[in-house]
Amino acid sequence: MPFNNQDIITTQTITFCEQPNELRLESGEKLGPITLAYETYGELNQNKSNAILIFHTLTSDAHAAGFHEGDKKPGWWDKMIGPGKAFDTDKYFLISVNVIGGCKGSTGPASIDPKTGKPYGLSFPFVTIGDMVSAQKLLIDHMGIKKLVCTAGGSMGGLQALKWSVMYPETTASVIVIAANTRHTAQQIALHEVARQAIMGDPDWHNGDYYGKSIPARGLALSRMVGHITYMSDKSMEEKFGRKLISKERLGYDFNQDFQVESYLKYRSDTFVQRFDANSYLYLSKALDYFDMAEDGSLSKSFSRAKAKFLIVSFTSDWLYPTYQSKQMVKALKVNDLDVSDIVINSDYGHDAFLVEAEGLTKLVRPFLKRAKI
Amino acid sequence: MPFNNQDIITTQTITFCEQPNELRLESGEKLGPITLAYETYGELNQNKSNAILIFHTLTSDAHAAGFHEGDKKPGWWDKMIGPGKAFDTDKYFLISVNVIGGCKGSTGPASIDPKTGKPYGLSFPFVTIGDMVSAQKLLIDHMGIKKLVCTAGGSMGGLQALKWSVMYPETTASVIVIAANTRHTAQQIALHEVARQAIMGDPDWHNGDYYGKSIPARGLALSRMVGHITYMSDKSMEEKFGRKLISKERLGYDFNQDFQVESYLKYRSDTFVQRFDANSYLYLSKALDYFDMAEDGSLSKSFSRAKAKFLIVSFTSDWLYPTYQSKQMVKALKVNDLDVSDIVINSDYGHDAFLVEAEGLTKLVRPFLKRAKI
Repeated sequence: MPFNNQDIITTQTITFCEQPNELRLESGEKLGPITLAYETYGELNQNKSNAILIFHTLTSDAHAAGFHEGDKKPGWWDKMIGPGKAFDTDKYFLISVNVIGGCKGSTGPASIDPKTGKPYGLSFPFVTIGDMVSAQKLLIDHMGIKKLVCTAGGSMGGLQALKWSVMYPETTASVIVIAANTRHTAQQIALHEVARQAIMGDPDWHNGDYYGKSIPARGLALSRMVGHITYMSDKSMEEKFGRKLISKERLGYDFNQDFQVESYLKYRSDTFVQRFDANSYLYLSKALDYFDMAEDGSLSKSFSRAKAKFLIVSFTSDWLYPTYQSKQMVKALKVNDLDVSDIVINSDYGHDAFLVEAEGLTKLVRPFLKRAKI
Repeated sequence: MPFNNQDIITTQTITFCEQPNELRLESGEKLGPITLAYETYGELNQNKSNAILIFHTLTSDAHAAGFHEGDKKPGWWDKMIGPGKAFDTDKYFLISVNVIGGCKGSTGPASIDPKTGKPYGLSFPFVTIGDMVSAQKLLIDHMGIKKLVCTAGGSMGGLQALKWSVMYPETTASVIVIAANTRHTAQQIALHEVARQAIMGDPDWHNGDYYGKSIPARGLALSRMVGHITYMSDKSMEEKFGRKLISKERLGYDFNQDFQVESYLKYRSDTFVQRFDANSYLYLSKALDYFDMAEDGSLSKSFSRAKAKFLIVSFTSDWLYPTYQSKQMVKALKVNDLDVSDIVINSDYGHDAFLVEAEGLTKLVRPFLKRAKI
């Protein structure tokens, strides 16, 4: 059935139970059975040659387009996915898949460990970006898709897209990497470590064993506050909030919140706590910090396995994944004589730009996908 | 006695008890008696016309030069203060003064409230940057100094220097403002709010009433971690730490710290907790967030009261107090036809550059002070 952006979408799940029912993880540990949550938009053609795989960010999910029953807001990339949009669902079959280690339907630390009948908590094995990709490959194989037109994502999603190009080069015709990098820097690791210490320092965290009890809400909220600041730019925060006061005519001269930016952070982080699992934040942030495409010490050597066409996009005001980091990626790809389009978009929206700048991205993605046909 | 950088220095204190023994604060509340901690380097001349007042940052103190008994490290601006240095103690009498609201000898929330015989805690009145300056004026008056050659500082110290120029224009012949701004932006407020929420969310904080009990160490350490990240630049963190591991040959695949940048932040924040009071962090961060030179809505109008010569310095990689914020200051000063030297120093050290780039600063400060004689 053709997809329409007004459609009510249900997230589907699939559990891989057959032998081999366990995934060998990069850490050496095993994980299984594995459930994956995903959504699809558009129709898979008869040749199964029009599939595009979409990946989400650290705290997002498989719900990229259309509406969930009762929701007023559509999926996170609804501006980009649909009939006639950047990812044209009249042409392509879009698959949006949730990562393992998360808490949005795929197997993660809040899932029930079949061996104990209780939530994994910290006994959940450590997963890497590569492990997420290995799990996604099970889904693509299950669907009988031999080759993807494109793997695409922003931020943590961009890392998965990139990883596909070297783990499954024969399966990946093109790759779109937005606001991402090839390895986490000291600053990025440091910001994540603040988030982890905030969670693990919350007395309600109980070494990850809090399911069914009080959740480490304060710690998780703090993590999210830091996150939000890094997702916006100095300029976008100034334009949105400046020094606007909450409701008072004057400053309070106390430790209550005075400024709108403070109450915004509180509101957003309090909402976040209700929808995201603290342990997943630990697992996924650590997976990001471990991420390093130059596994053997040479980035260009790692990319020598890739065969795809690449579209690499960054944003001028993104200070979390700055433009220079995309340039490093582009250089290592070009050294391998790969087909690389390298675009820097002028935007004040910081790292969030990849969700906001749909118009600019659409102009890039449409012709790129046309050229990237299998 | 002439100052020598090898000298053992003792921080002095003075308490203002005479009538009026209370300072009327900007909030409308009163504070008194007021103790100020300070150090001096060099000799006040007979005319009392060679004094320079130096201000410290959010978490620093009056100990700017020389050594404290038993210390291996000198004061925080020892590179800049001494015989033949930028602030030449053979010529000038340097006064370095600790802010009220802090915890380094001047009256603050950890001080004993004479009315109750117990530490103030949150009953300590709210203080602003202007209130800090008002308290400093008591010291200068007490010393019989009618006019200062210069008021100088970086970061929060820069704000105090700037405030002197409009609160006491007749007393301030020149002003050096380094890595500072004229008002806190939404991003700066947001970063401080994370710090405050970390402290106030610590169960050991007890609404500020923790003196003599367990201190809110985890919350304060988190605040400091965030602070450290903002004081360094992406580049300086990458050059110092990159992805260097702590001691292991391989990644741990767990939630222990893997990277040197993580253990550095932990070490620095654990040390900080032992030397700084959490309530002071709340008070001083809020004073910074409240800071706005354009008190009547017009920055240039506020500066119309100033009569000093100005040296305004910023650093290319400082993302906490970016160069464009210094440019706004310079513009508002120039609109008033004031004598302004506006310098941007190329540095990778981020906000910390004002402590590190002593050579570059010395080249600017020496000729500026020569020109700024009373």
